[in-house]
Amino acid sequence: MNFTSDNTHIIAEPILNAILKSNKSSVTSYGGDEITKKAKEKICDLFGVDAEIFFVTSGTAANALSISSVTPPYGSVFCHNESHIHLEECGAPEFFSGGCKLIPIKGFAGKISLEGFQNAINDHPSDKYDFKPSCLSITQSTECGTIYNEKEVNELSSLAHKYNIKVHMDGARFANAISTLKIKPSKITWEAGIDIMSFGTTKNGTMSAEAIIVFNKKISKDMNLRIKRSGHLLSKMRFLSVQMDSYITDNLWINLADKSNSMANYMYQKLLSVKYIDMPWKVEANEIFVILPKEIERKLSKQDVLYHKWSKVGIKDLALNKDKEFIRLVTSYNTKKDEIDQFVAILNNIN
Amino acid sequence: MNFTSDNTHIIAEPILNAILKSNKSSVTSYGGDEITKKAKEKICDLFGVDAEIFFVTSGTAANALSISSVTPPYGSVFCHNESHIHLEECGAPEFFSGGCKLIPIKGFAGKISLEGFQNAINDHPSDKYDFKPSCLSITQSTECGTIYNEKEVNELSSLAHKYNIKVHMDGARFANAISTLKIKPSKITWEAGIDIMSFGTTKNGTMSAEAIIVFNKKISKDMNLRIKRSGHLLSKMRFLSVQMDSYITDNLWINLADKSNSMANYMYQKLLSVKYIDMPWKVEANEIFVILPKEIERKLSKQDVLYHKWSKVGIKDLALNKDKEFIRLVTSYNTKKDEIDQFVAILNNIN
Amino acid sequence: MNFTSDNTHIIAEPILNAILKSNKSSVTSYGGDEITKKAKEKICDLFGVDAEIFFVTSGTAANALSISSVTPPYGSVFCHNESHIHLEECGAPEFFSGGCKLIPIKGFAGKISLEGFQNAINDHPSDKYDFKPSCLSITQSTECGTIYNEKEVNELSSLAHKYNIKVHMDGARFANAISTLKIKPSKITWEAGIDIMSFGTTKNGTMSAEAIIVFNKKISKDMNLRIKRSGHLLSKMRFLSVQMDSYITDNLWINLADKSNSMANYMYQKLLSVKYIDMPWKVEANEIFVILPKEIERKLSKQDVLYHKWSKVGIKDLALNKDKEFIRLVTSYNTKKDEIDQFVAILNNIN
Amino acid sequence: MNFTSDNTHIIAEPILNAILKSNKSSVTSYGGDEITKKAKEKICDLFGVDAEIFFVTSGTAANALSISSVTPPYGSVFCHNESHIHLEECGAPEFFSGGCKLIPIKGFAGKISLEGFQNAINDHPSDKYDFKPSCLSITQSTECGTIYNEKEVNELSSLAHKYNIKVHMDGARFANAISTLKIKPSKITWEAGIDIMSFGTTKNGTMSAEAIIVFNKKISKDMNLRIKRSGHLLSKMRFLSVQMDSYITDNLWINLADKSNSMANYMYQKLLSVKYIDMPWKVEANEIFVILPKEIERKLSKQDVLYHKWSKVGIKDLALNKDKEFIRLVTSYNTKKDEIDQFVAILNNIN
Repeated sequence: MNFTSDNTHIIAEPILNAILKSNKSSVTSYGGDEITKKAKEKICDLFGVDAEIFFVTSGTAANALSISSVTPPYGSVFCHNESHIHLEECGAPEFFSGGCKLIPIKGFAGKISLEGFQNAINDHPSDKYDFKPSCLSITQSTECGTIYNEKEVNELSSLAHKYNIKVHMDGARFANAISTLKIKPSKITWEAGIDIMSFGTTKNGTMSAEAIIVFNKKISKDMNLRIKRSGHLLSKMRFLSVQMDSYITDNLWINLADKSNSMANYMYQKLLSVKYIDMPWKVEANEIFVILPKEIERKLSKQDVLYHKWSKVGIKDLALNKDKEFIRLVTSYNTKKDEIDQFVAILNNIN
Repeated sequence: MNFTSDNTHIIAEPILNAILKSNKSSVTSYGGDEITKKAKEKICDLFGVDAEIFFVTSGTAANALSISSVTPPYGSVFCHNESHIHLEECGAPEFFSGGCKLIPIKGFAGKISLEGFQNAINDHPSDKYDFKPSCLSITQSTECGTIYNEKEVNELSSLAHKYNIKVHMDGARFANAISTLKIKPSKITWEAGIDIMSFGTTKNGTMSAEAIIVFNKKISKDMNLRIKRSGHLLSKMRFLSVQMDSYITDNLWINLADKSNSMANYMYQKLLSVKYIDMPWKVEANEIFVILPKEIERKLSKQDVLYHKWSKVGIKDLALNKDKEFIRLVTSYNTKKDEIDQFVAILNNIN
Repeated sequence: MNFTSDNTHIIAEPILNAILKSNKSSVTSYGGDEITKKAKEKICDLFGVDAEIFFVTSGTAANALSISSVTPPYGSVFCHNESHIHLEECGAPEFFSGGCKLIPIKGFAGKISLEGFQNAINDHPSDKYDFKPSCLSITQSTECGTIYNEKEVNELSSLAHKYNIKVHMDGARFANAISTLKIKPSKITWEAGIDIMSFGTTKNGTMSAEAIIVFNKKISKDMNLRIKRSGHLLSKMRFLSVQMDSYITDNLWINLADKSNSMANYMYQKLLSVKYIDMPWKVEANEIFVILPKEIERKLSKQDVLYHKWSKVGIKDLALNKDKEFIRLVTSYNTKKDEIDQFVAILNNIN
Repeated sequence: MNFTSDNTHIIAEPILNAILKSNKSSVTSYGGDEITKKAKEKICDLFGVDAEIFFVTSGTAANALSISSVTPPYGSVFCHNESHIHLEECGAPEFFSGGCKLIPIKGFAGKISLEGFQNAINDHPSDKYDFKPSCLSITQSTECGTIYNEKEVNELSSLAHKYNIKVHMDGARFANAISTLKIKPSKITWEAGIDIMSFGTTKNGTMSAEAIIVFNKKISKDMNLRIKRSGHLLSKMRFLSVQMDSYITDNLWINLADKSNSMANYMYQKLLSVKYIDMPWKVEANEIFVILPKEIERKLSKQDVLYHKWSKVGIKDLALNKDKEFIRLVTSYNTKKDEIDQFVAILNNIN
């Protein structure tokens, strides 16, 4: 049983098949091929927009490239204090931008509230020699497995734009959000004020494929140069593109996310009746967060089950007792009910 | 007929099969898996050395990460004036190092001569407020499809080390060099003084896989951080690793390179008897360089054959007449004799 | 009456005279002159140590150069959450280091406590792909006009070194600290574990002169290159050096700081009896922090007296009521008792 | 006798007096003072333009800040292959821009010819993944003591602008150029297409003061942030400003440059009749370049006379014989005829 992350799982079959199918003959390299062209068109169709699209192999790359295209070296980036860009990317935004500053904002369950963002703006040093507020980055679904609704994204974007701040969405688990929200992707992205997004797929069934989608046409046209000089322009681009294409074909991406989310919900429901454990917030996507006594966690860690201990920041913000442990469980399109039942049984036995 | 580059071609079957085979169950992400461990061990075995190994998806990334690990922001990097790092990477070495300076060195057929390197050292500004000579980067096989022999690499490395300069090998087409040299990889790398290398495979049959091999143990142990913050740490690492593994299994890499090289040699021999064209140097790997009258090239470009016009730097250094064009033709493990015959026929017909 | 900052004041006479005296004949530029050599020797004598010394024109430069010499691009820097490097330098540490991350630590009255530092270390992400804890930067005297004693510096340094973290002291107001502590400079710097320091003088009587003092010989010998490429190597270095020399000659620096500090203490004592105002901590150097009703501050701001509203961070950490204002008053060697009396009279009248 | 550089000399008296006069009372720091405001207005008047102006302490800073404001990290900068920014600043343009690439252009006597610039543009890699040509930097007077006339600057700027390349003038010795050209500063700067310039004064009589003049209003308004984060915002700005003010008051700057230039011309005329030496080009400003037999130079170096051996690049481009040495002699407003006579006598005696 591996609940550490959705990126431990295999490639979904339709995607692997699409790779195989594209491996027939030589094509133009570096993205000048028809497969790439078609994949980009399909993404534009999916989002109902004429956007600039770039494919890269990692979410960190997509995030850092996006953020650096709207943030000068002397710019600041507002983000949640548990965001991936702040805690898990070893300074990628700082590196790609040439030294920007992240402004971490606390917020319940991984979400930045309108008030939290307004306070952060108010607290930002503001004389003419200070960092220039440049970017707001929100994660959808969040690092805590929660989801911003349309109204929330709209309000955050509006506030950002009022201060001439661009809005980036880290959509590493965007499919899981759409699966839950059941709305058109446009509604929660460019129509809600998102200027640029990382549209992730790796965590939801591809081998390694992320798209940068530039909705706001005013954003620097030099993304191709940023991608090239950071080593993120793949020569055999078609194999990236074909993953993106098949990912959104025949609703595959939503089907996969539906499975992940339903498995998470299934686990959530089961865990509600397990003794001694707490879940600090409701599961909305494919991540379950569990507070449990340290003693129990110690026993659990010796079982044949893998999970992730959650961040020190999260533990601190929840002000957990010293005798508590805080863990994250992630489901995927590949998770079986059996595994969950087994996991819950183990937990019940330990207690 | 596509002779533009070896990166336009398909994935070799054994490599694709290996990817399929590795897609069975969940494994630890970010390289903590057994597949990755095994692939690294096999590379160490291949090179007969205990080296640190990292996998990334592009040659530019491998080069820039390698170079930045031995070059401070205020360091200078000696390289050929037609090298990929100087002409084709849009400043990746400058970006990753934080602003280093490349010192381009002229040299016949893509090779830096010992004298050329010594002169470049002599010409380097040398007071205590100048760039610090930090790295020599040589390409094997070179961007001109030529090959350094053991003696040459040894001599260049020795000279570099005398000045406390580290030596990087850009091995984007390393297989093609080994295929020709018919020596153990160790002989032309760490035993010949190479400190760190980019071991490329993408141009010779994988989907997208390059290894950074750190031979010199004194080189910064922080490569993992550089990789992470540049967005080059893949979560589903196994799919990279398995490509590397199968690439060097059962001599696949050399077999593929043998084919590429023999096709190049076949074309070279055929072209020797084509009128009006010149080849400025002998083919040693899988690239053929052809000088031809502009008029003929214009006609050729309208045929169903793809190739690359060579760099302005190269044209300048050869002091070509204005009525000449300079093109590059690259063969791959997938090139057919038929295609070459057809290409030569077209050329003969045009004349 | 100008209490905004000590950098609004004039050059102390002995220093100006020394500049005049050094303006006699041509000397070697870029620091190769005898005046510079002598100034460096005198600083070494003052600190009783054989250190490497560099002169630059701003405190931000001294701090950023120092920090970047001990912090790689992927390194993190612990500092107080009200520190100058975090709030007032527009990302200089991030720029010079190539994208490091500052870890702001809360602490009463501008000081980092041992516990606060230990907690920050504990809270620091710690897997092999996270920022590398590299530097602790403390300010002496602090941005809140308080002072670390020997024991405190020693303990912080020891803890830092335990984790292989280097210690930087921002000594923009170092003289004010020594004036109060009445100890040898060595005791509170290298003997207490400081690896590198910014020894400021501009705020205490020079025109513009700061020294970087490298106590720890293991720190990169390439500071000269960092200084050059950041545009901080002055050609007419002697005029910087002579300021440094005269600053520490005949105890001038301490005499000036004594005056500043005594004026601050005089103001502090007077303010103790002013109604409606609070001072959150005792004055230890030359800065007085005053909490006063917003209404009174509004009236005060219309008088002929200049001061600085304190940082939003500071206000937040003290959890001040919304109807309160928080201001900083700085005295200098040039401040007159009259001015203070007048200021206090104004305040009393307003009430 | 010190002919190494004009920056070895003393501060001109009127400038020192102005500093003294400005040292009366406290003023707003960081440039918010009246002295600074007035100095900027006077520079605008001098250039007959409404420009943005910033004061910094070094020419390298002025150059790097200027260049980085018009050059993105992935931009390239055309410059002479003997330019200060290329050979003498240890990568400041690369550092400040975040990794740009300098494109050195050969040209007789330190000048970039129109043809040379056009060729460099033609030779520049030009696909959509290459460095973006962003800046042309010319030095006036040049590093070889020669001067661009109006027509030349106009033509170079026009060509640059045709390719959307901004033009920077390194005016470290701008006064010497104006002294010779005898035209209004506007004619050879913004009216001739210069977008931004470094207006140097340190080499011509101030202590340490350089102005960045932004003529082109479209250039980033964030220069203040770049200056702050690079540590180049002086707190006691007035002492910089007052140098700039007095420098251009009562034609001081031109009077000083007239003296320097006339001394250079005097030396040039005298040297014309010295045996065994050559001067590769006519003296136009305050620098004399002399080719002389190595043997003679060896003897000269033992005399009481200081000068600078010229760059290896320059020697190479002139294709000097191995038995020749190439030296630079710089005069200043402080150079005496006596010294020159004495120097020439020494040379004559050596022969």
